[in-house]
Order: sequence, then C-alpha cells, then structure tokens
Amino acid sequence: MKFTPKSANYKKKVEESFHRQKFMKLINAKLVDVQPGYCEIHVPYDVNLTQQHGFFHAGVISTVADNTAGYAGFSLMEENSSVLTVEFKLNLMSPGDGELLIGKSNILKNGKTLTICRSEVFIVKDGKEKLCAAAQTTLIELKNSPDKNLINK
Amino acid sequence: MKFTPKSANYKKKVEESFHRQKFMKLINAKLVDVQPGYCEIHVPYDVNLTQQHGFFHAGVISTVADNTAGYAGFSLMEENSSVLTVEFKLNLMSPGDGELLIGKSNILKNGKTLTICRSEVFIVKDGKEKLCAAAQTTLIELKNSPDKNLINK
Amino acid sequence: MKFTPKSANYKKKVEESFHRQKFMKLINAKLVDVQPGYCEIHVPYDVNLTQQHGFFHAGVISTVADNTAGYAGFSLMEENSSVLTVEFKLNLMSPGDGELLIGKSNILKNGKTLTICRSEVFIVKDGKEKLCAAAQTTLIELKNSPDKNLINK
Amino acid sequence: MKFTPKSANYKKKVEESFHRQKFMKLINAKLVDVQPGYCEIHVPYDVNLTQQHGFFHAGVISTVADNTAGYAGFSLMEENSSVLTVEFKLNLMSPGDGELLIGKSNILKNGKTLTICRSEVFIVKDGKEKLCAAAQTTLIELKNSPDKNLINK
Repeated sequence: MKFTPKSANYKKKVEESFHRQKFMKLINAKLVDVQPGYCEIHVPYDVNLTQQHGFFHAGVISTVADNTAGYAGFSLMEENSSVLTVEFKLNLMSPGDGELLIGKSNILKNGKTLTICRSEVFIVKDGKEKLCAAAQTTLIELKNSPDKNLINK
Repeated sequence: MKFTPKSANYKKKVEESFHRQKFMKLINAKLVDVQPGYCEIHVPYDVNLTQQHGFFHAGVISTVADNTAGYAGFSLMEENSSVLTVEFKLNLMSPGDGELLIGKSNILKNGKTLTICRSEVFIVKDGKEKLCAAAQTTLIELKNSPDKNLINK
Repeated sequence: MKFTPKSANYKKKVEESFHRQKFMKLINAKLVDVQPGYCEIHVPYDVNLTQQHGFFHAGVISTVADNTAGYAGFSLMEENSSVLTVEFKLNLMSPGDGELLIGKSNILKNGKTLTICRSEVFIVKDGKEKLCAAAQTTLIELKNSPDKNLINK
Repeated sequence: MKFTPKSANYKKKVEESFHRQKFMKLINAKLVDVQPGYCEIHVPYDVNLTQQHGFFHAGVISTVADNTAGYAGFSLMEENSSVLTVEFKLNLMSPGDGELLIGKSNILKNGKTLTICRSEVFIVKDGKEKLCAAAQTTLIELKNSPDKNLINK
C-alpha cells in the first residue's frame, strides 16, 4: 500500500524518537529504513541477547517486531502526535539462530485514532534470510502530545 | 487451578534454564517464584531499559510476559522436554512508568502438546502496584529434547 | 474488579443492543447476565451450528467470546456511546463437544477510549462444564454516537 | 509462497470437509477457491447475519477468517490428517457494511505440527472491495485421524 505522510518531517521524527530509546542502544539495534508506513530495524547477534539455547531471545524478536510496527505507524502520524502500542500478537516460527535479526513492518490501515500493522522478523544465518516471526499490531495516535515532550524526568 | 508437576525437579529445571538465558542477565531480571503452573519474574528500573519517554520499553514488558509464560509452562513439562513459545498476544494498558516491573503467569491449560497461559505484568511506582500489561500465550512441549542439550555451540 | 457504570441504564442499553443483533437470533443466543463490566451469553447446541466433526463451530465460539466482551465493555460506557471491537485473540482449548456453550467476559481495564477484556467460553456436556476457549479483546468507545442511531438502512 | 500439497486429493478433501460443516450452510457460505496453501470463502449479505447496526456481525467475519485459514492449512496436510485451529487473532478495520464478505487466507509456514496463516476479509459494497479485517492464525495437524472419522455421533 502507498501512504502519504502527514508530516514532511516524518523520517527525522522517527529517527529522533528511535535514538531516545535507550533500550535500542542496549540491544545494539540499528534503524535501517523508514518510509511512509514502513520501518526496518536490524539487530546483530550478541551473546547477551540469547535465550537458553544460545539463540536470539523471543523478547528481542518481539522488541524488533513491536518497534518497527510503532515507527511504521509513527511515520504516518501528525507532526504533534505521539504513538503507543495498544497490543500486538506475535507468532514465533523458527528459532532465532543466526547472525542478524531483521524486522520489517508495513501499515495495513492508518485510521484516525488506530493504526494496524503487519510485521515480519527474519533471521539471517550464513547470509541466508529465513522468516523467524510474524506479528499483527494495533497502534494508537495521541494527538497534540509531541513525542519529545513526554520524556520522563 | 492446581497442577501436579510431572518432574519432581521442576523448580531446579526452570532455574537452570533461566540462568542460561544471557538476555535475562542483560536486563537484570530476577526469577522470584516458580510453582507448578506459575512463574514470577521481576525487573528493576534501569535507564537502559527505556523507550523514548523514559518508561520501561514494551520490548522489556513483553520479554517479562513471554518468559514468565514459558517457565510457568515448563514447570509442568516432563523431565526431558524443552519448551518453545508458539505465539503470544500482549495488551499494553498503562505506561511502564515506575521502579519495578513484575510479571506473573498462570497456566490455563496444560495439554499433551500445547500449553495455554495467561500473564499479567504490573508496574510498581512509589510502592504502588498497577496493571501494566496482559498476555495470552501458546507454548509447545518438545519431548525427548532436554532443554540443556539444545545449547547452540 | 468492581466497576461503577456511567449509565444508570446500562443493563437496558445492553439488552436493546443485543436484541437488535439478528445474528444472535439466528444462532439462538441468550443474553443471560449483564453486570457492570461483565456479560454472560448462552448458546444451546443445534446441529446447524456445527463444524465438520459435529461440534460447535469455532465461528460460533468466537461469536460468543466477541459478543460477551463487547457487551461487558458496553455496560461501562457512557449513555450516548457505542462500542466496536478493535481486535480479539482467541485460543481454542477443547472441542465444542456438548449441549450448551457459555460465554463469560470480564473487563480488565476501562480506559477513556479503549477497554480491554478477558473472556472464557465453557462447553457443558452431560451437565459438566469445561473450559473450551479463552480470549483477550480490545474495544473502542465511540462517544456521541448512540448505538441505536447507527442502524444501517 | 508456493507450496506442494502432500495429498493429491487436497481439493476434494477440503470440499468434503467444508460441506460437512452445517454452520457454513446456515450462514450461506460458499467455498470459492482452494489452492495449495490458499482458501477463499464468500458470504453474501443476509439480514440474519447482522449486528446491532445492520452490518455483518463480527462473529460472521471471524468465522470466515477462521475457516479460510483452517482450509488453507488443511490443503497442505497429509491425506489422513485432520486440522484444528489452535488460536487466531483478528483485527476488525472497517464495518462489514456491504453486499458480500470475501475471506482469503494464505499459509505463511507449514511446519510438521503447526501451520501459521494470514487472512484478509474484504467487504464489497456497490461492487467496490475494501479491507474489513485481518487475522493471524495457528493451526495444528492431527496425523492419523482422518477428518471424516471424527464425526460426532
């Protein structure tokens, strides 16, 4: 689907919000692409991100799904809006066994209040990409509450 | 609901698996309680776990929901089984604004192959506990594949 | 949880809306109980409601889950609001093999815009009640759009 | 995605199972297309299928989503297997306001035990198709229990 962003600044707005998320730095996540209604985040393998079998932890996989969904939605929201995840549902389809996690989210519907998103998370092993997880997410747009003003002090 | 564990060792089994999860150490998660069909995990606030507004990141909240669900289920599984999350759905109901995140999961049904779980995540602020998120999760029991043998080398 | 309804009329409002749903009549659903934040619906077995094995169809089970959730939420909404289901997630845990389907929904959180609900659907066989399905649902309150004014002409 | 069916009979198997579902007859659902990993079902508008505003009831929409998912999965399963829905999550994005409901499901992953599916339900009004709902579903394959032998007597 093709979307027209309501804010000319949509890319900068997403990048700034992403860089305020200290958890992204902790897990070494990279914001790789932002388009209107689309977001892509990569997380390279690190032993500190693993579950009991040495694979990417489901918590990291869901973080990537949730964050790409949130920013895919945020890219379509008004200049002075902030975004919150209402809920998401994630299916884990293959173990996160590989050197890189790639999350990609596409907006299905951008409503006045709610935005619906679908996400895929791929695991790259020896350069080969495989579907690792898929999510469906509901986001809410909070109008007149700019993202940067919500900072917890 | 009351469950009878199939492994006398259920608590030790969960603790060992939890401590093999390096991601739990990274986010400083504590395994606080394990009962048959129940698991509780705490995560104290740390600025490295925050999203753009300075609250606990949804990825941390979902990690806690997923992990308590997985271990609540694992506590009921056979000695030589391992557990995987098939899918989960999480509603975020209040911002993770507080000093401590508490995840609690209870098994709804422990089937032969699949186990269904409900989870609540609470946020504690100034000592007051508030419902932050709720999840419903499907787990699968992999028989004859002991958790510790699956370690990625 | 205890809730205080915003409309003194909450029970009548739910009953009238329920009786406008012609699909409820088709499947012979009975609105059995409405309390603030709670709703219960029963559907007696009928061969026309079955799937390929002769059990209650998952579509009927999800109808009961969705409708009890919607009306549990609606009971807490303002006099002039209507309710829509944003999304729901349903786990089917046992076949709908029995003479009566009982749906019960309880509100977890009644927010300004969104309301979150948990539902259980039980199957009664030879008088014995068994958990058949469990759902978690997100509802939205549409203010100043009374339910009865939305009728499609 | 392209899938190779394990049963040469896959189409006949789905059609026979569909026609054993008496609930499909009650709601006048038509099985319009079955391909390996794909299923499409149509339901024409009928006043008996409506909710309180006169639109298709969410229960009918979720029936269509669930059934197309189940049969998309069933088309890939072994000759002697039957299929059950483990769980599904459905987002309702537009009211079911129109003359025809069209459900389409595509398999994302066909695993040994579990199969994951994505579904879209469209509403057609005055000949124009609009996305009405989207689902993500987990199915389980029950091997050596042929669908037709499970009939409830």
